[in-house]
Amino acid sequence: MNIADYLPVWGRLTEAQRAVLESSAMQRRIGRGEVLHSGAADCTGLILVLSGQLRAYIVSEDGREITLYRLFERDICLLSASCIMRSIQFDVVIEAQKDSDIVIIPSEVYKRVMEESAPLANHTNEIMASRFSDVMWLMEQILWKSFDRRLAAFLLEESVLEDSDSLSITHEKIGNHMGNPREVVTRMLRYFQSEGMVRLSRSMIELADKQKLRTVAGE
Amino acid sequence: MNIADYLPVWGRLTEAQRAVLESSAMQRRIGRGEVLHSGAADCTGLILVLSGQLRAYIVSEDGREITLYRLFERDICLLSASCIMRSIQFDVVIEAQKDSDIVIIPSEVYKRVMEESAPLANHTNEIMASRFSDVMWLMEQILWKSFDRRLAAFLLEESVLEDSDSLSITHEKIGNHMGNPREVVTRMLRYFQSEGMVRLSRSMIELADKQKLRTVAGE
Repeated sequence: MNIADYLPVWGRLTEAQRAVLESSAMQRRIGRGEVLHSGAADCTGLILVLSGQLRAYIVSEDGREITLYRLFERDICLLSASCIMRSIQFDVVIEAQKDSDIVIIPSEVYKRVMEESAPLANHTNEIMASRFSDVMWLMEQILWKSFDRRLAAFLLEESVLEDSDSLSITHEKIGNHMGNPREVVTRMLRYFQSEGMVRLSRSMIELADKQKLRTVAGE
Repeated sequence: MNIADYLPVWGRLTEAQRAVLESSAMQRRIGRGEVLHSGAADCTGLILVLSGQLRAYIVSEDGREITLYRLFERDICLLSASCIMRSIQFDVVIEAQKDSDIVIIPSEVYKRVMEESAPLANHTNEIMASRFSDVMWLMEQILWKSFDRRLAAFLLEESVLEDSDSLSITHEKIGNHMGNPREVVTRMLRYFQSEGMVRLSRSMIELADKQKLRTVAGE
């Protein structure tokens, strides 16, 4: 494991900063389903994903969950170190979706380096802006588009029409059917895939969990 | 106008950094209803609010609006300078809600200083984390809280902001703030009236029983 591969600004840190990050970093293997972080009070640290998959979600008072984003190999989880910024005032849960290898950099160590390093602080800004954008996208989908419902319903209907759970249809064509740009279709299909509802391959969409698709479609 | 009063990290910038920010800052007076910024492609700059009130909102394809947050005296608007971070991938509109005095620091100037100043980059992080938290709160309201709770909370908040128990605001406008059609607002307000919580008259909403509203709001 080499932190340099995960932090693009590594080369712009001083030798002392690199040493302090490296010596504090702890590698861990976590099992599928393990909760790594829960709520703003919990301050696990910055998590680098070496392999596997993590999921960040919020939970309602009555126990409903909604996925905010997933983290894959080479992604960095910032909200698990939420205490490095006092303005983060919301609770997320971070859970391993698959068996994963991760590296944890303790929050106070990361914070100390970030406070003196402009490159690291700016990079952290970019990570946060990227998660912020994910959440805004999700909110717009939920608020206005109901595109998830419409796309799930479309896939189920196609599957009946074709009498098959493997659909040979391009994202472009789906977009034409539904009046959305191809990029929007691709993005939502990837979201479905990360939720285990479909499997995507070259020009094929396989309906992997029709029950879940029906729930999303509101059927 | 003294930027030092608005940027708490002012004293930790170098003299050259302060000079470049100061010489680029432009003071402007904007009228109620004026749109300052619209969409990610628009890169107005960092806005410091000297007086008045700004509103940040998103708009659906069919023209519905929902307020993300408001900015008051001494607040800083970061999303109007969204191009300083390439990871911000969503569109907001920033509009003056009241006649306002603002200072604009051009994006490229702010970005240049932020890239070399760890204190400014860290402060920018805090501003973004704070807006991110606002949006997360809103999403939770929309996802999980019922509309009666949200509307009661909105009326109480407005009453504090306007320093009055008589609100001169249309149902349409409330709907825009909350991402609901006007009819839904009117219906819920009538329900509140029948419960003795508000009194409705032409374009006025009087908070008649704030204790009961607080109970509904879950406060």
